[in-house]
Amino acid sequence: MADKIPPPTDQLAAVPLDNAGASSSTVHKPWSPSRTRIRSILGRPDGGAGLAGQKVQISGWVKKGREQGKGKFAFLEVNDGSCAANLQVKVDASVSDLSKLVTTGTSLTIDGCLKIPPQGKATKQKIELSAEKVIDVGTVDQHGKTPYPIPKTKLTLEYLRDHTNFRARTTTMAAVTRIRHKICLAAHVFCDKHDICYIHTPIITTSDCEGAGEMFQVTTLINQSEKLEKDLVKNIELTEAEETLAKVEDRSKLKPGLLLPRKDGKIDYSQDFFARQAYLTVSGQLHAETYACSMGDVYTFGPTFRAEKSHTSRHLAEFWMVEVELAFAGVEEAMNCAEALVKDICKYLLEKCLDDMELMKNVDEACIDRLQMVALTSFERVTYTKAITLLEEAVAKGKKFENPVELGLDLASDHERYLTEVLYKKPVIVYNYPKKIKAFYMRLNDDGETVAAFDVLVPKVGELIGGSQREERMDVLMERMEEKRLPIKEYEWYIDLRRHGTVKHSGFGLGLERMLLFATGMDNIRDVIPFPRYPGRADL
Amino acid sequence: MADKIPPPTDQLAAVPLDNAGASSSTVHKPWSPSRTRIRSILGRPDGGAGLAGQKVQISGWVKKGREQGKGKFAFLEVNDGSCAANLQVKVDASVSDLSKLVTTGTSLTIDGCLKIPPQGKATKQKIELSAEKVIDVGTVDQHGKTPYPIPKTKLTLEYLRDHTNFRARTTTMAAVTRIRHKICLAAHVFCDKHDICYIHTPIITTSDCEGAGEMFQVTTLINQSEKLEKDLVKNIELTEAEETLAKVEDRSKLKPGLLLPRKDGKIDYSQDFFARQAYLTVSGQLHAETYACSMGDVYTFGPTFRAEKSHTSRHLAEFWMVEVELAFAGVEEAMNCAEALVKDICKYLLEKCLDDMELMKNVDEACIDRLQMVALTSFERVTYTKAITLLEEAVAKGKKFENPVELGLDLASDHERYLTEVLYKKPVIVYNYPKKIKAFYMRLNDDGETVAAFDVLVPKVGELIGGSQREERMDVLMERMEEKRLPIKEYEWYIDLRRHGTVKHSGFGLGLERMLLFATGMDNIRDVIPFPRYPGRADL
Repeated sequence: MADKIPPPTDQLAAVPLDNAGASSSTVHKPWSPSRTRIRSILGRPDGGAGLAGQKVQISGWVKKGREQGKGKFAFLEVNDGSCAANLQVKVDASVSDLSKLVTTGTSLTIDGCLKIPPQGKATKQKIELSAEKVIDVGTVDQHGKTPYPIPKTKLTLEYLRDHTNFRARTTTMAAVTRIRHKICLAAHVFCDKHDICYIHTPIITTSDCEGAGEMFQVTTLINQSEKLEKDLVKNIELTEAEETLAKVEDRSKLKPGLLLPRKDGKIDYSQDFFARQAYLTVSGQLHAETYACSMGDVYTFGPTFRAEKSHTSRHLAEFWMVEVELAFAGVEEAMNCAEALVKDICKYLLEKCLDDMELMKNVDEACIDRLQMVALTSFERVTYTKAITLLEEAVAKGKKFENPVELGLDLASDHERYLTEVLYKKPVIVYNYPKKIKAFYMRLNDDGETVAAFDVLVPKVGELIGGSQREERMDVLMERMEEKRLPIKEYEWYIDLRRHGTVKHSGFGLGLERMLLFATGMDNIRDVIPFPRYPGRADL
Repeated sequence: MADKIPPPTDQLAAVPLDNAGASSSTVHKPWSPSRTRIRSILGRPDGGAGLAGQKVQISGWVKKGREQGKGKFAFLEVNDGSCAANLQVKVDASVSDLSKLVTTGTSLTIDGCLKIPPQGKATKQKIELSAEKVIDVGTVDQHGKTPYPIPKTKLTLEYLRDHTNFRARTTTMAAVTRIRHKICLAAHVFCDKHDICYIHTPIITTSDCEGAGEMFQVTTLINQSEKLEKDLVKNIELTEAEETLAKVEDRSKLKPGLLLPRKDGKIDYSQDFFARQAYLTVSGQLHAETYACSMGDVYTFGPTFRAEKSHTSRHLAEFWMVEVELAFAGVEEAMNCAEALVKDICKYLLEKCLDDMELMKNVDEACIDRLQMVALTSFERVTYTKAITLLEEAVAKGKKFENPVELGLDLASDHERYLTEVLYKKPVIVYNYPKKIKAFYMRLNDDGETVAAFDVLVPKVGELIGGSQREERMDVLMERMEEKRLPIKEYEWYIDLRRHGTVKHSGFGLGLERMLLFATGMDNIRDVIPFPRYPGRADL
């Protein structure tokens, strides 16, 4: 999982744009008629050449700048975030003080005329902007105590994690951001197309979906004394002396306990905001089931949280999931739907952001091939038992895994990747897992030992999707809950779905960041979400 | 804000569907080829009549059922959540035990043949299903200790809030849910169309966007002793006696303090998950600005949180916002973009879910007219000062407001609604508010007294959108922060955006639930989100 260095910024193959086509004029936003996006120049099939002679105004940040001709003019590579490619801008010294423009990170708004650059000597640009007026400049503070953290030298992804407020100014992070956007859109469009209804399951919840999750607690109890302190500082002049005194007294009362413990030593949650203990959701599934059992087909797309002290390159404390829940559907239909969703996302990326995907080849040469393969190949389906047999065969032939292969144990990441990358060389759906290693809500198969659960494994990341048919039989569900020693009383609302008009239903969850790793070839999950949260880190 | 009774379930005007058209066959999902959605039958322009003679399988829940002909047959109104309309199903006693089918809330999967019902005697149905086989039934427990909470009698919205796991089985709540879906889609489609890039700002944050927000704290500190207790209960047989003992000892050490206070009496946050105090976000704006200042145009769409003890019909502790942030854009461009977004959402609803909107007329007769008006009318724009003058004129003419009208004070909800509903009878954008009543990040106007902030007011809800140009001048920003006594050190990452390549930029936030109230005419914000969170309540 060595972090790779971002590729140079000028390696972008321009591709056709939905809106820009190859007409002879550029495209503007209805609300900012003066500014032309660089994408609508360089993203044309002709690389912008057809726009030669046009006057445009562009804005962006200098990626690289250099004075030339003994300070008579400067070349600036300008990027505005609309695409990975930079527009080359030529500024004469007569137009502006060049020394203010050439520093990497400087922001600019420039009026100019698009021109075909003189060809020869390895010219890459099909078009450049000849500056006529510099409208606006935002300089970079090079010598202050907090210098610009994104110089034009190559930077490691690890370094960039310490500068999340600026890292999208790098080519790789910007491309990942645009790909993330398109994956999200693809998921929404897929669901909408198939009349799967978007619902927002709650972020703050009083239920524990997995029955075992490490959850973050949400509370206003601790805050009280600190708020009081802040108020004091803020209002010190305004407040009457008497009021201040009263507050100080209040505060001293609060301070030792902070949580206002009851006499029995337990915390008095009746004083908390929701008058009970509340947590951040670990999955919207149980809540989604309530809506599936009325709306039919539903999905959630929201943040989920795990307070696991996990420092790996594939776990985050805050991550996004698409969770689909289908009523009147068995596990096979859920598998079909999951496969269709993954394929659709791959196709969408190939169609809508091939330029950014081309750029990602600097990180992972195989990323486009992988998308094409998954878009076009039927997913293999094997039972858990078969998967174990296959892995045992591999072990017998000398394959070494980090984790033991054994019937009854869960598949580890290296097992999953072996199945999908080596053995089948395509996505694999493993289904019918032992009930002991799976959650209480998964439907018990007729064998009494396995549940109708499935995982979708893909090359590069292993598990991308987890799903199952849900136990719709009330008696079986309650038995399973008792086996797992879950507090049945807290789940009455969930059991009620089985009590009144129960239906066969199934669903699955797709980890958005896993999908990003798969699509982009990035190695560390902390680099495919704008503001990663993990143990010890929640910057900004 | 009196809660209205949901309308009867059979008042739906069938409308054309994107996919179903008026072809002679029904539409299936690729992953569930056997089941036909009721929408693809009743949503056709011909109301389904053109499908007469076809064999289909439908699934759903019984809304109303009655035995007739002395028990020889039954009529069932079946709904599957795909549309508001119910399919009428006729079941002969020879096909199934009718008494098991007729109870409201029963789930069914039925094979049958579509037939034109005998006309006359006020027949509303253009098509009905004649049942041939009952494949599956999920009964309702009428007599247990938790009876089915959604009988066919009319129920108040207030009552339904106590049953969020079932309330989407009512016609009104289901229609609101589908409209919510379409509003979300409309926002995503709008942004994608205009190359505004979707970014996920963090939910867990260590920054306070408003500088004054009531925030929820996120922590794992409190949990520790409780988890230990749980583990003990769970593993009591498995655990060695010695281990148990050790844990009990650990626990007794934790219990009195719970939060492991340091010697100085303060909480030791180095022990917390993120090694510092963390909160739930009140707005993604500041984070979105970092991405706008690299990607250009970005938006967030996610949950936001306010720990305000507010019990009104228009506040939630957890709600969803669309926040758009545009680089190289002034306040006017942000206003233009906000107006375009609201209009687009209105058009989208009129186009994509007119049937559900027709149904909402039972709640608010004017809801469709309002969408059409907003979609087609230019928004009025007035300065804050002008707005105050207008309100003062109204007061002079005898208009009574709940809150005082005074230059320098913020507009209250009744002021806002007067401007948009009575005075202009269309959406109004009020801009240039006094700096004293607005946040530190809003750009100071040349007058030194007002900031380039704006609110979009719409009939029915008042403020729908709040936005502003952001202060891009570092010195002015820091002055404003000092005025507001904000801890500058904590905002260095934000100030850095002004230090290095600063750009003019502007943005706004649209409250999703406010948009829902506006579109549907519902009165209480708790009824337009699936699982409402407010003081004292976080069900499920």
